[in-house]
Amino acid sequence: MSNIEAVLAHVDENIDASIERMKELVRFQSISTDPAYQEECRKTADHLASELNTIGIAADVRVTPGHPMVVGHAEGNEGKAGPHVLFYGHYDVQPIDPIELWDADPFDPQIVEKNGIKVMTGRGTSDDKGQLLTFMEACRAYKAINGELPIPVSILFEGEEESGSPSLVPFLNENKEELSRDLALVCDTGMFDPTTPSITTMLRGLLGEEIIITAANRDLHSGMYGGPAANPIKILTNILADMHDENGRVTIPGFYDGVEELTPEVKAQWDALPFDAQAFLGDIGLSIPAGETAYSVYELVNARPTCEFNGITGGYSGDGFKTVIASKASAKVSCRLVGKQDPLKIREAFRAFVRERVPADCSVEFLDHGAGPAHSLSPDYPPLKKGAEALKDEWNKDAVMMGMGGSIPIVGEFKDILGMDSMLIGFALDDDNIHSPNEKYNIESYHKGIRSWVRVLNALAKD
Amino acid sequence: MSNIEAVLAHVDENIDASIERMKELVRFQSISTDPAYQEECRKTADHLASELNTIGIAADVRVTPGHPMVVGHAEGNEGKAGPHVLFYGHYDVQPIDPIELWDADPFDPQIVEKNGIKVMTGRGTSDDKGQLLTFMEACRAYKAINGELPIPVSILFEGEEESGSPSLVPFLNENKEELSRDLALVCDTGMFDPTTPSITTMLRGLLGEEIIITAANRDLHSGMYGGPAANPIKILTNILADMHDENGRVTIPGFYDGVEELTPEVKAQWDALPFDAQAFLGDIGLSIPAGETAYSVYELVNARPTCEFNGITGGYSGDGFKTVIASKASAKVSCRLVGKQDPLKIREAFRAFVRERVPADCSVEFLDHGAGPAHSLSPDYPPLKKGAEALKDEWNKDAVMMGMGGSIPIVGEFKDILGMDSMLIGFALDDDNIHSPNEKYNIESYHKGIRSWVRVLNALAKD
Repeated sequence: MSNIEAVLAHVDENIDASIERMKELVRFQSISTDPAYQEECRKTADHLASELNTIGIAADVRVTPGHPMVVGHAEGNEGKAGPHVLFYGHYDVQPIDPIELWDADPFDPQIVEKNGIKVMTGRGTSDDKGQLLTFMEACRAYKAINGELPIPVSILFEGEEESGSPSLVPFLNENKEELSRDLALVCDTGMFDPTTPSITTMLRGLLGEEIIITAANRDLHSGMYGGPAANPIKILTNILADMHDENGRVTIPGFYDGVEELTPEVKAQWDALPFDAQAFLGDIGLSIPAGETAYSVYELVNARPTCEFNGITGGYSGDGFKTVIASKASAKVSCRLVGKQDPLKIREAFRAFVRERVPADCSVEFLDHGAGPAHSLSPDYPPLKKGAEALKDEWNKDAVMMGMGGSIPIVGEFKDILGMDSMLIGFALDDDNIHSPNEKYNIESYHKGIRSWVRVLNALAKD
Repeated sequence: MSNIEAVLAHVDENIDASIERMKELVRFQSISTDPAYQEECRKTADHLASELNTIGIAADVRVTPGHPMVVGHAEGNEGKAGPHVLFYGHYDVQPIDPIELWDADPFDPQIVEKNGIKVMTGRGTSDDKGQLLTFMEACRAYKAINGELPIPVSILFEGEEESGSPSLVPFLNENKEELSRDLALVCDTGMFDPTTPSITTMLRGLLGEEIIITAANRDLHSGMYGGPAANPIKILTNILADMHDENGRVTIPGFYDGVEELTPEVKAQWDALPFDAQAFLGDIGLSIPAGETAYSVYELVNARPTCEFNGITGGYSGDGFKTVIASKASAKVSCRLVGKQDPLKIREAFRAFVRERVPADCSVEFLDHGAGPAHSLSPDYPPLKKGAEALKDEWNKDAVMMGMGGSIPIVGEFKDILGMDSMLIGFALDDDNIHSPNEKYNIESYHKGIRSWVRVLNALAKD
């Protein structure tokens, strides 16, 4: 048995213990966006640091103005010359509302069969606790068999990924020397389908904004004031309705500056993917593509920018009815960005677009919910080729170079602040229900994910 | 001292006890729209029935599928021939949110000075508990001095006025004989200004609707689905933005059918009122009239129909940010109606307008939050002239015949079901903050309101 086969065998023999450790991590209620869960986030960070130390990766918890970071380091095999990698994951999770749509407690993970497939249910199982554990468990197996890792590994676990990462940029700047490594490995992405290993080489950026419109100085009776009094819900809905034209294009001036069309090669590769747009939409109960009419569904998700309304609120929304004209109305809006779109320029254009449409006797306030540019990796990058070969060994199928609609702003920050490229390998599936009720992670995703990282670490250690 | 002067003197001598009884009534948390307050509504009805019996008006509590009614009857002076009146008020109140904007507990009434004027604070002080008590206290004084009322009086107190009055029409139909009187007296309106007694002869009708748009079958990650997945907030904001044109007119087909322009006489009377549109808007922190551009602010509020958005909700609206595409979004919309606009035809037109704009793979559900037509009373109606003279005696100023923007659907139902006109006399003021935080009722409104009803009852008893 070669060394890597011994490590893989150890993974297989100890998978039940790995699953128990995943359950333990999922039980922490680490919802980063809600201040009520601050203490839970801190406990999650403590737990991860303690686990890393157990494995033999010297780690500690670093305080930030927000939720803490976990940082760890381990030397590699001294006889080998592989790159020093920084592995990144996030331990925080999305809120759980609407809680009534969950089949089970989101923080009491269960192993159940769904459509004949064994899965673990719970908030964060897929995004990102299960995924970050695939890497930790691969390191654990290496350490158990060899007493050391094949290459030097540093770890960075963040606790604010789901809430705009406010502490991340200052933290990277303050710890630039400690965290600048040869390459970042990130496990927060998915596979093209359940049998096709995937490396994500294009990620959309994200701009998060909140608009708060104030009209009258108090809530008004709609009988006494309805008509001449400005209604902030009307102002807001008019502004939002103005943001797209009849072809689904965003109308904010300059929004498409820096958007790049696909190269003919990538377009050909994507057209060849067995992507079923009707099945993709059918799965979520829809059948008519929304968004820009000029692009395919796959392109819309993976290579086109968007301006989406993530939340809106104003006036009375309880049971029954209240004939009120509200004083305030607000909306949360996020733009997915691609190519060389500049998030800060788009923020300014967005705010100007809104301000122009607010009546002179009303006012608007904006809240900044984070901004990160899009990311793309060249297909010629050597670690990418090694990673793809390792994945092929595990899955017996060529790895695809994917685009991904989601945003991982960290990837842009790693490039800008630490001068480091990121290789995004993940095992999540489209039906994992991340950010939704009944989030789950397949046990196979977890098990083969751990095995995949064993092979990737091994491949990177080779000359 | 004439008999009426003795009654008025009794009112003055016992005003402190009247104020204590008002505080007692305001302390009941009778929020009708919220099922959590069902028991409180029942207790309020019990209390009022008990008080009426104490005065000598035989009353009881009548169960309905919703909150109970209170019905009472008292014979008048047998020697006189005045009309038998039905007095109507409502004991339920609006919700209290946003509670953080109240200066004091809304259900712990306090007597305080505001701008040098003595007021009682609390939810319902003006709308409508203080107002209905002006009539009860007038009856109490009459009974104390004379042992009887000058005319026969029946009482109807409702507990669902603030939540669309779902039980009212069935109740009126079932109790038609008991409740059909010569004339209804309603105390749920205001004065033109603090010194001008007013009888409201035009009331806007009300149509309440809720739109619930469903797009995907679950909440979606805006990165994985943003672009091709229909966003219900976008659909809803587009529909709402379509409902008005650039001149502030409602675009729903047929909406203006039955709307009547003012007669030249009424227009001249209204133009002569010392109504200061800038002060009216300035008081609520605004300066630019919204709504139909072709009409004055006073006309907009009192004689024009509206379509107002009273509440909107969808997606994530908690602290922080969530990059979600919601499955559902909803809005509460109310139309104020005038003239002969037909609420049920407008409901159908409204729903058709919305349905046409919902994509074929999404769905819409509507909730019915009540419908009532507009109301107007002829200036030649004899009781109206008697009422106006009685008010002039109390306030030393001619009573104005007003329009009012608010809706009291009961007035239409009294006409349609019980064949009875309604005379609307109220003492609320524009700054009473009804339906808003810090609702109040001036002690002078209360005191002179009681005295006014003494005089109106006396006037109606005359041939």
